[in-house]
Amino acid sequence: MWLPRRFKHCPSCGQAVEYRVPADDNRERATCTACATVHYENPINVVGTLPVWGEGPDAQVLLCKRAIEPRYGLWTLPAGFLELGETAAEGALRETDEEAGAQIELLPLYSLMNVVSVGQIHLYYRARLLSPEFNPGPETLEARLFHEHEVPWDALAFRTVRETLRRFFEDRRLGRPFSLHSADIG
Amino acid sequence: MWLPRRFKHCPSCGQAVEYRVPADDNRERATCTACATVHYENPINVVGTLPVWGEGPDAQVLLCKRAIEPRYGLWTLPAGFLELGETAAEGALRETDEEAGAQIELLPLYSLMNVVSVGQIHLYYRARLLSPEFNPGPETLEARLFHEHEVPWDALAFRTVRETLRRFFEDRRLGRPFSLHSADIG
Repeated sequence: MWLPRRFKHCPSCGQAVEYRVPADDNRERATCTACATVHYENPINVVGTLPVWGEGPDAQVLLCKRAIEPRYGLWTLPAGFLELGETAAEGALRETDEEAGAQIELLPLYSLMNVVSVGQIHLYYRARLLSPEFNPGPETLEARLFHEHEVPWDALAFRTVRETLRRFFEDRRLGRPFSLHSADIG
Repeated sequence: MWLPRRFKHCPSCGQAVEYRVPADDNRERATCTACATVHYENPINVVGTLPVWGEGPDAQVLLCKRAIEPRYGLWTLPAGFLELGETAAEGALRETDEEAGAQIELLPLYSLMNVVSVGQIHLYYRARLLSPEFNPGPETLEARLFHEHEVPWDALAFRTVRETLRRFFEDRRLGRPFSLHSADIG
């Protein structure tokens, strides 16, 4: 199990921290050896969208070719870290704008995926593209639409992207109403 | 908008940080004046359950009377901060065990609530109680079942608890199938 030990010094006073179990707790926490402040580390959220152009079996999905590490040159759904000051939906909209320059109508949350090995939860909202024209930002080499048979399954950047796309196409093939998929990616 | 400035010193080297916008970024981040490391701050997740005993309009919900601050003495659904190393569902199960000592079967995610003002997302899973006997831990003064007309609406600890319970009873009253509710609490 991945447990980062990010703190060497106390963010409050700068002195050394030790990882120890506080009196009323059952996990090791970064604890300042000088001011005794306890600093918690928790999973963080990645928020993004599954933008779709058109309806039915001919509909296409938007993917972005990454211009940054990690996974430079591989394809992803637009997504990134949720920021303080925004809701999950606002973050997903922002990332879709920043990475693809795509205009969308946000639809309900479609997938919630635990990536425990890196301390993340990935949340993807379905979205309806309002235009097939994109204006990718500096983090994206190319943004384009893919029919199901064109999806570059072997060149996808993240497992949560693969698992979200796989469920989407399966729901569509089986004519299932879209609802939330929860999954643990490991 | 609430934007904490938690870092005064660099967790890596202990020297002073400044909040400034990195070259490839558009937000102020805690940046070390000595080693230049950038430290990010992101929303965190609170995970919990809505445990139900029985079926239909007579079913009861489990609430816990808090033995800790904040909101000492007020009633809450079992919930707490998601920890590294666990999935959202595992965290919700753990909190239900720690706070109520309740045995449950976890059901699908029921509410996702953004509490932007404190940088949190609250996630509540529906749950079926396997027994009406509880064994509350040290964070709980009392754990008990409530029919809808008994819920202490004026003594609930958190707005996300109120909003989750309100939607649950409304869904049940209208005979709606349970599905995910998303809401922004402010």
